[in-house]
Amino acid sequence: MGSPNSGATPRGGMETQGGKGGEFEAIARLRRRLPGPPEGEVWIGDDAAVLGPRAGRIVLSTDLSVAGVHADLELIGVDDMGWRAFTAAVSDVAAMGARPDGAVVAVAGPPATDLDLLYEGIAASSQAHRCPVVGGDLANSEELVVAVAVMGHVEGDPGPVLRSGARPGDHLVVTGPLGAAAAGLRLLRARPPAGGGATPGPGAGAGSVASTPGAPTADDLAVIAHRRPRARLAEGDAARLAGATAMVDVSDGLLADLCHLADASGVGFRLDEVPVSPGATIEEALGGGEDYELVVATPDPGRFEAALAEAGLRRPVVIGVCSADRSERTLGGEPTTALGWEHSWR
Amino acid sequence: MGSPNSGATPRGGMETQGGKGGEFEAIARLRRRLPGPPEGEVWIGDDAAVLGPRAGRIVLSTDLSVAGVHADLELIGVDDMGWRAFTAAVSDVAAMGARPDGAVVAVAGPPATDLDLLYEGIAASSQAHRCPVVGGDLANSEELVVAVAVMGHVEGDPGPVLRSGARPGDHLVVTGPLGAAAAGLRLLRARPPAGGGATPGPGAGAGSVASTPGAPTADDLAVIAHRRPRARLAEGDAARLAGATAMVDVSDGLLADLCHLADASGVGFRLDEVPVSPGATIEEALGGGEDYELVVATPDPGRFEAALAEAGLRRPVVIGVCSADRSERTLGGEPTTALGWEHSWR
Repeated sequence: MGSPNSGATPRGGMETQGGKGGEFEAIARLRRRLPGPPEGEVWIGDDAAVLGPRAGRIVLSTDLSVAGVHADLELIGVDDMGWRAFTAAVSDVAAMGARPDGAVVAVAGPPATDLDLLYEGIAASSQAHRCPVVGGDLANSEELVVAVAVMGHVEGDPGPVLRSGARPGDHLVVTGPLGAAAAGLRLLRARPPAGGGATPGPGAGAGSVASTPGAPTADDLAVIAHRRPRARLAEGDAARLAGATAMVDVSDGLLADLCHLADASGVGFRLDEVPVSPGATIEEALGGGEDYELVVATPDPGRFEAALAEAGLRRPVVIGVCSADRSERTLGGEPTTALGWEHSWR
Repeated sequence: MGSPNSGATPRGGMETQGGKGGEFEAIARLRRRLPGPPEGEVWIGDDAAVLGPRAGRIVLSTDLSVAGVHADLELIGVDDMGWRAFTAAVSDVAAMGARPDGAVVAVAGPPATDLDLLYEGIAASSQAHRCPVVGGDLANSEELVVAVAVMGHVEGDPGPVLRSGARPGDHLVVTGPLGAAAAGLRLLRARPPAGGGATPGPGAGAGSVASTPGAPTADDLAVIAHRRPRARLAEGDAARLAGATAMVDVSDGLLADLCHLADASGVGFRLDEVPVSPGATIEEALGGGEDYELVVATPDPGRFEAALAEAGLRRPVVIGVCSADRSERTLGGEPTTALGWEHSWR
């Protein structure tokens, strides 16, 4: 997992071997925080992780999180950033109807980065999503960047659900109401800074976000949705088995992600109504992203609903239908503008 | 592959959909630069890539490259940085004796980054190492960071070669002379800046580094070794099949990487002599790193040499032996100090 120096202006690194404050000591410490492999597998500590054979098809994806872009560390903890980065990557596997097998985590950051706290969030999401951290890399950089690559697989048939299989007449279904994560971010931005400075203290995790004792309010839940989102692995698997023709996770924003699905499938869509999370606005539900609910195209939404009910999962919501006219993209009869987030390149 | 905005101070990104200068247009453009999948597989463009089943054991690794730390863009082109980042990740798979199946490439960088040139280098290494780019992610950040995760596999027996299997009495063998990449960097640093500014022009690849017409000099070869290193996939595979007990690639520096192998195996080592690349110093051979030669522990170096000869590969060099005393780490009878590079963490 080490990385050599070959730059003209090395920053923060040092020539040493295994001492306190060094990369190898940090790796050894983080490794102790994470569970070890079963017999016959090798995870952290070699040139590459070794996993057993996987029947069926393999899926592979990567997702980037940049401090200040994907995570505002004046509003959330670096543990939350770790959770969010890991979850976003796992969500890509959920959106294929696959199950994750393992992830490799690459962290570039300033020497002052609290790696232990970052890995607390990574380890918590790893455990929650049953996706072990099997390897990684560490390097110094000016700003914190986390890249998580996840491998997963789909056993048997049907295979992974692509974005490109939707057909005219298929119903469009979401696995839950939208906009909570965006509402949570809005609420965090509106809060006065916490005492003791702009940086949330260590361990400011999902358990400590409630503003008042007792049952969490809609606002509390929105903040949790932003800080500790969940990937819909069981829902994605159920959708695949229930005959979904296309699927995407809501990471960029419902309309933006739906446009990806429609573009890939060569269809249009007519939306009737979109379920909005308590406390969120319709704009947040349509454009907010990062809820990680799944949007599923299926000719038989009743079958998907029954599959989710059988698994004890939340009832999905039919939001519209796919149409043959690929230029048709409406909500309540009005044309939609897909407001999503794009990074900018020359 | 998109990524949403949820930061307080988004830099460089924009709210749009698919237009010129946007993330999705960039992805579409890069996708055209890369080969597409065979029937039954899905590469770039969905939530995750879909690969066919792989018999045997799967290996998975990730490697980070940070501009200014791993690559000095005042000395080499951003295409070279792409090549180097991709090759370093593939080398981890070579060091297991495995073959790569596909890579996902996460790029965080300023909007002004020449993504096309970066991907020219990535695509060239991908083709040279027969490891397709099957997916990726793009995000804006202040400095250029490239994280490459590679999946590979080993079919049949013996399985992947770990760092931990060396035994006292095993011979230590390297697949070639060392220090060329470090010497190349030294030569680049000593050169007067090229006309037209500090940044090498686009396409300043391996073919254009020769300083004089005619056969490349040792200096030219050293510069090529720095800018366009090769992963030793065939050598790693041959070592595995010829009974290697442990293996590591020289990425941090020979002594540092040998210490990783010795630590993991619980052995010491006595080195007799180390082959030094033409034009390199002994210090560069021992500590330079990034040559990506493999260090192999084996009870039967003759068998490894015969396997390499049969494959038409360079003759390996026995450099020493593993010993039972794990505190013994000598070169020519003198204790060695493992000078390698570590990133720094609090």
